[in-house]
Amino acid sequence: MKRLTAGCMAMALTLTGMMAQDNNKLTLEDLIPGGETYINHIPENIYGLQWCGDVCIMPDTDTLFAINPANGEKTVLATRDEVNRALQEVDGSKMAAFYYSRFPNGNLEEVELMTPGKICTYDLKEKKIKGTAVFDPVMDGIDYADGRQRFAYPLAGGLMAVDYSGGKETDFIPGGIKAEGEGIVYGTAVHRNEFGINKGTFWSPDGERLAFYRMDESMVTEYPLVDIDNRIAKETPIRYPMAGMTSHKVQIGVYDGTTGKTVYLKTADPTDRYFTNVTWSPDSKKLYVQELNRDQNHLQLIRYDATSGEKECVLLEERHPKYVEPQHPLTFVKGDDGKFIYQSQRDGFNHLYLYDTDGKLIRQLTSGDWMVNSIEGFDEDGRNLYFTASKESPLQTNLYQVNLRSGKMRRVTAHDGTHSVMLSGSGKYVIDNYTAHDVPRVINILRTDGKGKEVNLLTSKDPYQDMTVPTVELGTIKAADGVTNLYYTMTKPSDFDPSKTYPVIIYVYGGPHMQLISDVWRWASSGWYYYMAEQGYIVFTLDNRGSSNRGLEFENCTYRHLGIEECRDQMQGVEFLKSLPYVDADRIGVHGWSFGGHMTTALMLRHPDTFKVGVAGGPVIDWALYEVMYGERYMDTPQDNPDGYEATNLNNLAENLKGKLLIIHDYNDKTCVPQHTLGFIKSCVDKRTYPDLFIYPGHDHNVLGRDRVHLYKKISNYFLQNL
Amino acid sequence: MKRLTAGCMAMALTLTGMMAQDNNKLTLEDLIPGGETYINHIPENIYGLQWCGDVCIMPDTDTLFAINPANGEKTVLATRDEVNRALQEVDGSKMAAFYYSRFPNGNLEEVELMTPGKICTYDLKEKKIKGTAVFDPVMDGIDYADGRQRFAYPLAGGLMAVDYSGGKETDFIPGGIKAEGEGIVYGTAVHRNEFGINKGTFWSPDGERLAFYRMDESMVTEYPLVDIDNRIAKETPIRYPMAGMTSHKVQIGVYDGTTGKTVYLKTADPTDRYFTNVTWSPDSKKLYVQELNRDQNHLQLIRYDATSGEKECVLLEERHPKYVEPQHPLTFVKGDDGKFIYQSQRDGFNHLYLYDTDGKLIRQLTSGDWMVNSIEGFDEDGRNLYFTASKESPLQTNLYQVNLRSGKMRRVTAHDGTHSVMLSGSGKYVIDNYTAHDVPRVINILRTDGKGKEVNLLTSKDPYQDMTVPTVELGTIKAADGVTNLYYTMTKPSDFDPSKTYPVIIYVYGGPHMQLISDVWRWASSGWYYYMAEQGYIVFTLDNRGSSNRGLEFENCTYRHLGIEECRDQMQGVEFLKSLPYVDADRIGVHGWSFGGHMTTALMLRHPDTFKVGVAGGPVIDWALYEVMYGERYMDTPQDNPDGYEATNLNNLAENLKGKLLIIHDYNDKTCVPQHTLGFIKSCVDKRTYPDLFIYPGHDHNVLGRDRVHLYKKISNYFLQNL
Repeated sequence: MKRLTAGCMAMALTLTGMMAQDNNKLTLEDLIPGGETYINHIPENIYGLQWCGDVCIMPDTDTLFAINPANGEKTVLATRDEVNRALQEVDGSKMAAFYYSRFPNGNLEEVELMTPGKICTYDLKEKKIKGTAVFDPVMDGIDYADGRQRFAYPLAGGLMAVDYSGGKETDFIPGGIKAEGEGIVYGTAVHRNEFGINKGTFWSPDGERLAFYRMDESMVTEYPLVDIDNRIAKETPIRYPMAGMTSHKVQIGVYDGTTGKTVYLKTADPTDRYFTNVTWSPDSKKLYVQELNRDQNHLQLIRYDATSGEKECVLLEERHPKYVEPQHPLTFVKGDDGKFIYQSQRDGFNHLYLYDTDGKLIRQLTSGDWMVNSIEGFDEDGRNLYFTASKESPLQTNLYQVNLRSGKMRRVTAHDGTHSVMLSGSGKYVIDNYTAHDVPRVINILRTDGKGKEVNLLTSKDPYQDMTVPTVELGTIKAADGVTNLYYTMTKPSDFDPSKTYPVIIYVYGGPHMQLISDVWRWASSGWYYYMAEQGYIVFTLDNRGSSNRGLEFENCTYRHLGIEECRDQMQGVEFLKSLPYVDADRIGVHGWSFGGHMTTALMLRHPDTFKVGVAGGPVIDWALYEVMYGERYMDTPQDNPDGYEATNLNNLAENLKGKLLIIHDYNDKTCVPQHTLGFIKSCVDKRTYPDLFIYPGHDHNVLGRDRVHLYKKISNYFLQNL
Repeated sequence: MKRLTAGCMAMALTLTGMMAQDNNKLTLEDLIPGGETYINHIPENIYGLQWCGDVCIMPDTDTLFAINPANGEKTVLATRDEVNRALQEVDGSKMAAFYYSRFPNGNLEEVELMTPGKICTYDLKEKKIKGTAVFDPVMDGIDYADGRQRFAYPLAGGLMAVDYSGGKETDFIPGGIKAEGEGIVYGTAVHRNEFGINKGTFWSPDGERLAFYRMDESMVTEYPLVDIDNRIAKETPIRYPMAGMTSHKVQIGVYDGTTGKTVYLKTADPTDRYFTNVTWSPDSKKLYVQELNRDQNHLQLIRYDATSGEKECVLLEERHPKYVEPQHPLTFVKGDDGKFIYQSQRDGFNHLYLYDTDGKLIRQLTSGDWMVNSIEGFDEDGRNLYFTASKESPLQTNLYQVNLRSGKMRRVTAHDGTHSVMLSGSGKYVIDNYTAHDVPRVINILRTDGKGKEVNLLTSKDPYQDMTVPTVELGTIKAADGVTNLYYTMTKPSDFDPSKTYPVIIYVYGGPHMQLISDVWRWASSGWYYYMAEQGYIVFTLDNRGSSNRGLEFENCTYRHLGIEECRDQMQGVEFLKSLPYVDADRIGVHGWSFGGHMTTALMLRHPDTFKVGVAGGPVIDWALYEVMYGERYMDTPQDNPDGYEATNLNNLAENLKGKLLIIHDYNDKTCVPQHTLGFIKSCVDKRTYPDLFIYPGHDHNVLGRDRVHLYKKISNYFLQNL
């Protein structure tokens, strides 16, 4: 324990708890998304900000503004009254607000606006409606063709694609692609949204071709979820391929609007193969696909001819003894169709690589012990690339410029913190929306060359002003490997007194693809931490090894035994807590959801004398019940890794339960199916241990909306009563 | 409150808590069925006792005894060694015990015994196996033909019938009746086992014909239960007709073994019609069916010709403004095929009526404010009928004789208490297995004429001897109507001190077809009462109006608003408790299962300031989710009785929840489907109230077997922690 205390880097940064003028304590309605007064206690923002060329567009309810990025000059493009007058002449419909505004042609002549059920093309000069297209709320997953008035969307297993240019709505694909029957779907995201996949249609740059996924999951076993809102409860099954079991098959089709023909890419056998990060060539003639075997240890970047569907070549391959995880499509260099940027973790961190279309590596553009997050675009002549990265610190995200020839890098966003950016058409300007532990939110327009004066669009007020709020401290401790620094935050009651002792609740996630702590407003601490802190608890959070944004080895040390290293690191956190004089070591609790639910349960069972109370939400209990894509990446199959599955199956530890453990599961959880929790309950019944249980009917993976306040009241009560 | 205390009849009978030599307290493993040591703490019994003519047969593991009922002389009919030697010669199989012994011919020449997978006919004189028949454990619902070596059983939707006489096994129905496909079943109990139905095949007295039910439930909506023991959870739907919805259709077929033909009874349209209490005429030529409309207020006793299926006549009809509930088949008079006994509640209590086969009432045999329970048989010449009834007290069951001509009655069993009887072949003797509040169990053989000396087969020792056990008191209070007496029991800690105050747990059922209190060992108090009493609680039980064995009006005052009167009566119990100086009125809890789960939840919600803690198991929450047969009898349909359904739907009261309420539901509950509890949880989430929940996966309506100890530990902990 001493070693730990010594090892703890004393970089604790303290946010002073803002003393309220009145003693008004924050309630869960204030602090939890879905709460009635939640909106009053989050940083302000501007919704719908965008670029039209190099003009910044700022919509609000009544007015559509154009902002000159050079000087901040604000002009009115349209008012709601004008638009509604124009609509009156067409069909009497009304637009409620400008938040949906789209400039399909990249100029300020026409804007698309939304009225109930319709997209209207509005002529900003003539102040007239030039055409409308149906927009049904059941259209889920609309995908627009850039610079065109075309969109595609999946519909009940089939696929629709519409052209609404020239004020006239026609089928881009005549009649659409008809559904083939249950188990086959067109145009949706596939592979359970892993590998960076978040949609199922891909317009060619010229808007004349539409690539789409076709997924046959008829061979995948159905998981029987139940909808209790029906007069008699009704089965609403989902196709859920569990680790080691038969998975779905995906194909990529290309519909050509000029010929009216569809070809399918002539890929290798789609059985146990993942087709990811579909990218069009700039000339709309080729398709690049990053293909991965089921073992997820061998990636090929393959080019196909979009006209014939023929495979042309394998541009590059990646192998890794653990796993390769492609997450980014290619980015072609502006003005040079023969070169693209490829992203890879091959050197241990996600970095940018410049390739030519023969698959020849020209150069690695970025390198170092830090991660590239996202590519944001190029400057006008394509010489410099803009990207965000966590270079300053794993907790921060800043915008950088890199020169494609020299590799010379320059930081664009000056303020430390977390920047979310949008590049203007020419790349000359950027909308910089940022936050930091001491900054609720600021939105500026900057010049990407670092010159000129920034234009401030918003500086949010402190959403807790005049309220009593806890303090949040950041620090690091060593991981269980004795080497790696791990970040923690500690949220302390506003009236914290170091001479007293406090119970602690550890909030945990711990799995890949997630980082709980970052340099955003109040170190990303959540409203619930504040609520519990004000009830007299310290809330502690630690991003253990296995979590994101720290590089591949930090993440993949958990390979084939998910949860084991993660628990060891969390126990380092416990030892650190126990070393603090103001921590009551007999009153330590833990709470987390999903992977964090697994961690909570695992910690309760592996360390029954440490944790007095736990609340596990939607927990993974047995990785054999989790899905193929995510699960097998980290665990391989149950057939290949029986020991790993056995060691991490919490059913095997059910008899260890000693403290109070509340397990919460959503009855309609499609991500982590209810069988996890129900099976664990059965194991506990068998072993005569006594977890508590709660079910949220009608909710999917996590409780959202208004009911989230109920969830957090339920969780809070459990700690208040038992810890 | 004063009125109540005054009104309480001070007939409390106290059972002295037996002082233990050691202070060994009973554990849940001792007290709960399924517990490891439960068997050591229940009254002794003799299993498999039966008559062969007028010889009493007493099997045990090693020996099959014959007992002379006149003098108790015990002779050995066979030993296990002998039987196994005989089996050795045939197929080498072994018999484990004599508990399954059947005398198909009514004499002591042959006995049927059971070996794994086989029924063996054993010649008691020759000590040889004379034949075997397959007996598969999957044969569920075996129905034997009296006096024949024939049985029938439903199999996977179809029906099998076997003859194994003469040492040879053949199909009685060649090839059986084949299954027609999902949704149609042959030979099983129908109408969800209401109306006294507990099987689906009916052998004619001569064993040459087999009547059977055919149920088409393909039009009934499926309820999606889920089996989580599968590798991927699997839907295991049940056809569950909910109140007011489309129900199944039942037909009665008759297979004739001599002609090999099947006819179906030519009944009225089976839509919304119940076919109950199928009875063969003694000559095996006619079938009597008690048919009921869906409203359950109009009963017809109809005779059919079993050869042609033609309807012959309606013998009698019954109507009632609330409901008629047929529960007993006809009993033909011994030696007089033209007369039968019919049972009816038409005068307010279940009584016996002598009819002729033209439907003419000859006479009402029994009458009075008490209930006939069961017909047991006749004496040799058919002049006297034997039946059990609750004549001495609604808490007792005794055997009576009534003369069919004079109506003269005589009590046969002398000891007050609850008698379970078996009449010998001639009706001269009866095996009398009885218990009373102060008698664990006694088994005697009596002469039905009241003469001669009884032969004692067993006098159970006190199963709690040398243990510390609570006291159980019986008493009565007035119901909420101010008139009716209701029985209660109070279980008090063994170290009860009237100068202290105690928290109380009310254990409740409260629905029809059940009486919690009767004059059996320790007033039918359960092991769990003792456990909680020894933890310092008083356990109180009250059989409110609506429960069984007190007559029709006592039961049907709840018609169309189930749970309302019942709660009022339970609140009388609460007022009584509050009047007792040793009751802590601020610490009252309630627990019950099924209807008792409804009552528990209803009491918590209707009287939130009275009940601090409740545990509701498998509760009915909304009668609209309950099944047609039971539900509509008491509630009519939701269409006919919207106000009643609204007033009794506990979802509407979810916002009243104030105390701690744990709801427990079985995940595979086919009686009260999980939608009740899940829907209520949803209502509470919506109203921001906070029940607790637990689910037992894999269990049906109530938790049985070894897991029952877990259940009661869970329940006990909840009271211990919160009350």
